[in-house]
Amino acid sequence: MDFDEFREFGHASIEFIINYLSSIRDRNVLPSVVPYEVFNQLPKEIPEKPEHWREVLKDLDQIILPGLTHWQSPYFNAFYPSSSSAGSIIGELLIAGIGVLGFSWICSPACTELEVVVMDWLAKFLKLPEHFQHASEGPGGGVIQGSASEAVLVAVLAAREQAVVSYKESHPELSESEIRGRLVAYSSDQSNSCIEKAGVLAAMPIRLLAAGEDFVLRGETLKAAIEEDVAAGRIPVICIATLGTTGTCAYDDIESLSAVCEKHKVWLHVDAAYAGGGFALEEYSELRKGLDRVDSLNFNLHKFMLVNFDCSAMWLRDANKVVDSFNVDRIYLKHKHEGQSQIPDFRHWQIPLGRRFRALKVWITFRTLGAEGLRNHVRKHIELAKQFEDLVVKDSRFEIVAPRALGLVCFRPKGDNEITSQLLHRIMERKKIYMVKAEHAGRQFLRFVVCGMDTKPEDIEFAWAEIESQLTGLLEEQALASRKAGNVADLTQHFQIHLTTDNVEKSQ
Amino acid sequence: MDFDEFREFGHASIEFIINYLSSIRDRNVLPSVVPYEVFNQLPKEIPEKPEHWREVLKDLDQIILPGLTHWQSPYFNAFYPSSSSAGSIIGELLIAGIGVLGFSWICSPACTELEVVVMDWLAKFLKLPEHFQHASEGPGGGVIQGSASEAVLVAVLAAREQAVVSYKESHPELSESEIRGRLVAYSSDQSNSCIEKAGVLAAMPIRLLAAGEDFVLRGETLKAAIEEDVAAGRIPVICIATLGTTGTCAYDDIESLSAVCEKHKVWLHVDAAYAGGGFALEEYSELRKGLDRVDSLNFNLHKFMLVNFDCSAMWLRDANKVVDSFNVDRIYLKHKHEGQSQIPDFRHWQIPLGRRFRALKVWITFRTLGAEGLRNHVRKHIELAKQFEDLVVKDSRFEIVAPRALGLVCFRPKGDNEITSQLLHRIMERKKIYMVKAEHAGRQFLRFVVCGMDTKPEDIEFAWAEIESQLTGLLEEQALASRKAGNVADLTQHFQIHLTTDNVEKSQ
Repeated sequence: MDFDEFREFGHASIEFIINYLSSIRDRNVLPSVVPYEVFNQLPKEIPEKPEHWREVLKDLDQIILPGLTHWQSPYFNAFYPSSSSAGSIIGELLIAGIGVLGFSWICSPACTELEVVVMDWLAKFLKLPEHFQHASEGPGGGVIQGSASEAVLVAVLAAREQAVVSYKESHPELSESEIRGRLVAYSSDQSNSCIEKAGVLAAMPIRLLAAGEDFVLRGETLKAAIEEDVAAGRIPVICIATLGTTGTCAYDDIESLSAVCEKHKVWLHVDAAYAGGGFALEEYSELRKGLDRVDSLNFNLHKFMLVNFDCSAMWLRDANKVVDSFNVDRIYLKHKHEGQSQIPDFRHWQIPLGRRFRALKVWITFRTLGAEGLRNHVRKHIELAKQFEDLVVKDSRFEIVAPRALGLVCFRPKGDNEITSQLLHRIMERKKIYMVKAEHAGRQFLRFVVCGMDTKPEDIEFAWAEIESQLTGLLEEQALASRKAGNVADLTQHFQIHLTTDNVEKSQ
Repeated sequence: MDFDEFREFGHASIEFIINYLSSIRDRNVLPSVVPYEVFNQLPKEIPEKPEHWREVLKDLDQIILPGLTHWQSPYFNAFYPSSSSAGSIIGELLIAGIGVLGFSWICSPACTELEVVVMDWLAKFLKLPEHFQHASEGPGGGVIQGSASEAVLVAVLAAREQAVVSYKESHPELSESEIRGRLVAYSSDQSNSCIEKAGVLAAMPIRLLAAGEDFVLRGETLKAAIEEDVAAGRIPVICIATLGTTGTCAYDDIESLSAVCEKHKVWLHVDAAYAGGGFALEEYSELRKGLDRVDSLNFNLHKFMLVNFDCSAMWLRDANKVVDSFNVDRIYLKHKHEGQSQIPDFRHWQIPLGRRFRALKVWITFRTLGAEGLRNHVRKHIELAKQFEDLVVKDSRFEIVAPRALGLVCFRPKGDNEITSQLLHRIMERKKIYMVKAEHAGRQFLRFVVCGMDTKPEDIEFAWAEIESQLTGLLEEQALASRKAGNVADLTQHFQIHLTTDNVEKSQ
C-alpha cells in the first residue's frame, strides 16, 4: 500500500463527499435512468492493468451518481430515514482502516468491549429497563445486528428453539418434528415485511393478526388467536409487536400484549426500528410502557441516531436463550476467556460468524454529538413533520389518514384510491421528491417521512409546494378531460341527432 | 453537518490510519488486556454535550488500539485473512458518504446495476461457468452477501423450501410438517462451523459426514449416506461441499459429489470462502473441476480479493429458486420496473431487507488494482506459504500434517498433542504472532496462514524464528524439568534407602 497515494485518494474522496452532500438539493432525488442504463455504460471485464483512482472518481461522478436515488437528500421522503453524520462517515473510514473482526473476545477484545459500552450507553439514553444492560446483574445485554430483519430473525429463531426444548420436556411423548410442525407465531398485519419473511425463513407460520381501525394490535386480539391455536393443538411461540409500523407508525399496545404473552409463556419481541428514537424523549415516555415485560427489542441506529446503515441495536432480557440456541463451536474458535458470564462472544448472538467493528462508528457519533445532539435530532424531525401536517390540514383538498407520529405524516387527496395513485405517479415522474404509498383496509394513502441530512423548514415547504401543485395540475387535467369528455358527449349527441335526422331524412 | 470540520476530521483520520498501518509491526499482534480492561477505562454514559473529535481520536489511540488484535499485521497468522487495500478503505468512506441503500432497483438503480457489473466481472475473472453471470441467457447471477455464513444459510433455506414444494407435489398425501420433519442435509466434518449453524437455524439436520484421511469428502461417502436416508424415508435436500476447509484447506471432490447430487436431485452448494481465490489462476484450474454442475457457490472477497470485510460473493445457477422462496412483498416496496427477469431486486436474494452499497468498494478495489494485481496478490500469498513450508520441512523437530494449500501450512512439533498445545500456549503468551490450532482424528496441529497487509518474506522469517525458538525453549525447559525430576527421583531413592536402613536399624 502506497501511503502517499492513499492520502491523496482519501483527501480527494472527502472533497467528493463534501461536494456531493453540499449540493444534494440541486439534484432530482430520483434518477432519470431506465433499467440497464448504468450497466450499459460500464466495461464488461475487470481492467487487466490498474487504473488511476482519478479515473474511478470521475466515473463515480459521471456514471454512478446520476443513477442513484439520493437517500441523504431532504427531498427523500419515502422510507424511514437512513441517517448519517460526519462522525459516522469517518467512523466507517476508521473501521475499514483498522480492519479488525470481532466474532469472539480474543479476536479483538476492544471491539467486543466497546460494543458492550455503547449498547449500555444507548440502553440508558433510551431509558430502557435496567435488565437490558450488560452491566446489570442478570443475563441481559445488547448487541449490534446489521438490520432490523436480522434482529427479528434472531428473536424468532431463538424463541423457536427455546419452545422446542421446553415443549419436549413437558411432552416427551412427542417427537421433535411433531413439535416443530405445531409451532405458530404472531404479529400484526401492519408489521414490516421482514417479519413475514422471518416466518418463511424459520419455517414457522407467523399469523398476521388484523390490527384495529387505529392500526394498533392489542392483547385481546392476540389472546383470541392464541386460545384458538392452543385449542387446535398448536404451540404459540413468539409475538412480534411493533412500535412504529412501516405504514403509519402505529404503536402496538405492549402492555396488554405482554400480559397475554406472560400467561401463555410466549416470547414477546418489540420491533421499534423507527419509533425507538422516541424512547429518549421525556415527552414520549408513554411509548416505553410495558417494555419491562418484553423479552427482546430492536431499534435501528441508522433511523434516528445519526449512525449510518448498517447498525441495528438489539437487546435481550436473557441472552443465554440465544447463545444456547446458536452455539456450534469448533476448536479453532475457542479461547481461554470464553464464557458468556464473563464477556460475550457476540458470534453466538447473531446469524453470521464474522462481524464488523460497528461499535466504533456508534462511539464516535455519540461522543461528537452528545446526548443533547441526539435528542435534538429526533425533536427536529418531529417539528418538521408537524410543519408538514399543518400544511396538509390547511388544504381542504387533502385529508390526514392516521395521526402524525414522530416524523411521519400519512395523508391523501380526498377521493378514491385512483386519485392517490395518479398523484403519486405524477410526483414520481417529476422526480423532485420521493414518497411511497401504503394501504390499510383497501384504502391507499401517501406517506411523507422527514429524512435526509440537515433537513430544514424550507425543504418541507418545497415538498409541500410540489405535492399541492401537482394535485392542482392533476385536478385541472381531470376537469379539462371531463370538459372534453362532456364536449365529446355533446358532440356525439349532436351527431346522433344529426344522424338520426339524416336517417330520418334518408328514410323519408 | 459542518463541512470544514468534516474535512479536518477526515484528514486527521486518514493520518491516523497511515500511522497505524505503517507501524503495525511495532505492536504485539495480540493485546495485553484482560476481560473488561477496556470497558473499565470508558465512561458509563453518553456525554451530555458534544466532545471534540480530537478527544475521540486520542482515546481511540490510547484506549482502543492497545485492546485490539491486529488483523492487518503480517504476524496475524490465525484465521484466514481479512484483507484490505487502499481502494477498499476509501471505498467504505465513499459508501458511507453517499449513504444510499439498495434493496430494490428503484431504491438506487446504480447500486443494483454496479453489483450486477462487478459480480459478472468477478465470475469471469474466476473463470466460473458462464451460467453464473447475470449477462448469460439463463436465470443465474451473483449477489454480494455479508459473509460466507449468510451465503450458506441462503442456499440451505432456499434448497429447503424448494424441496418442500417439489416433494409436496410428488407426495400430496403428506402434510407439509411431515415433509419438513424428514428433511436432511449433508456436509463434511471438516466444514466450517457456520454450516452446522445453518442447520440449526434452518431446523434441518445437517449430517457431518466423515472426510477421508486426506480430509476430503467424496461422492461415495455422500452416496452411502443418501441411500441410507432415503431407505429410512428421509428426504435429502442439500449438500454443502467445501473448497478450502477451515482446518487444512482441503478440497472436497466436487465432481463425484455433483454426480451423486444430480442423481438424487440434491442441491449442491460449494463453500469456497477461501480457496475461491485460486480459481483465478491458470495453475489452479484443477480447483474448478465440477463447478459447472453445482447450484450455488460462495467466495469471500475479504479473504483474497483485497476487499475488506464484509463482502462475500455468492452465485446462483437459478436465482429464481431463492427469489421464489424469500419474496414477501408489501405495497410500499413495489415499483414499476419490478421483475427479476429484467433487473434483480436484491432484497429477494438475501436474508435482510436493507443492504449497503458494497459493490462500490469492490469496483474501486478491482479497478485500482487491476486483474493483474489481484492475481499477483493470490500468488504472493502462495509463495510466502511455500517459504514457510520450506522452513518447517528443514527442521526435523517438526512435521507437516496436511499438504500445503494456497496460503495455509498445517504442521506440528513431533510428539503428542500436549507438546503442540504447550508450544501454542507459549507463543500466545508472548503475543508476537497469532496462530490457532485445529484437530483431525484426535490429532491436534497448528495452522499458519499468510495474512496481513503487505506481508513480506522477512515477516515469514520473523514468524518462523518465533515458532522454532519457542520450541527450543520448551524442549530445554522440559529437559531441565526432566533432569530435575531425575535428580528428585535419585534423592527420593537415597532417602528411601536411608529410611529403610534407619528403620532396619531401629527395628534391630
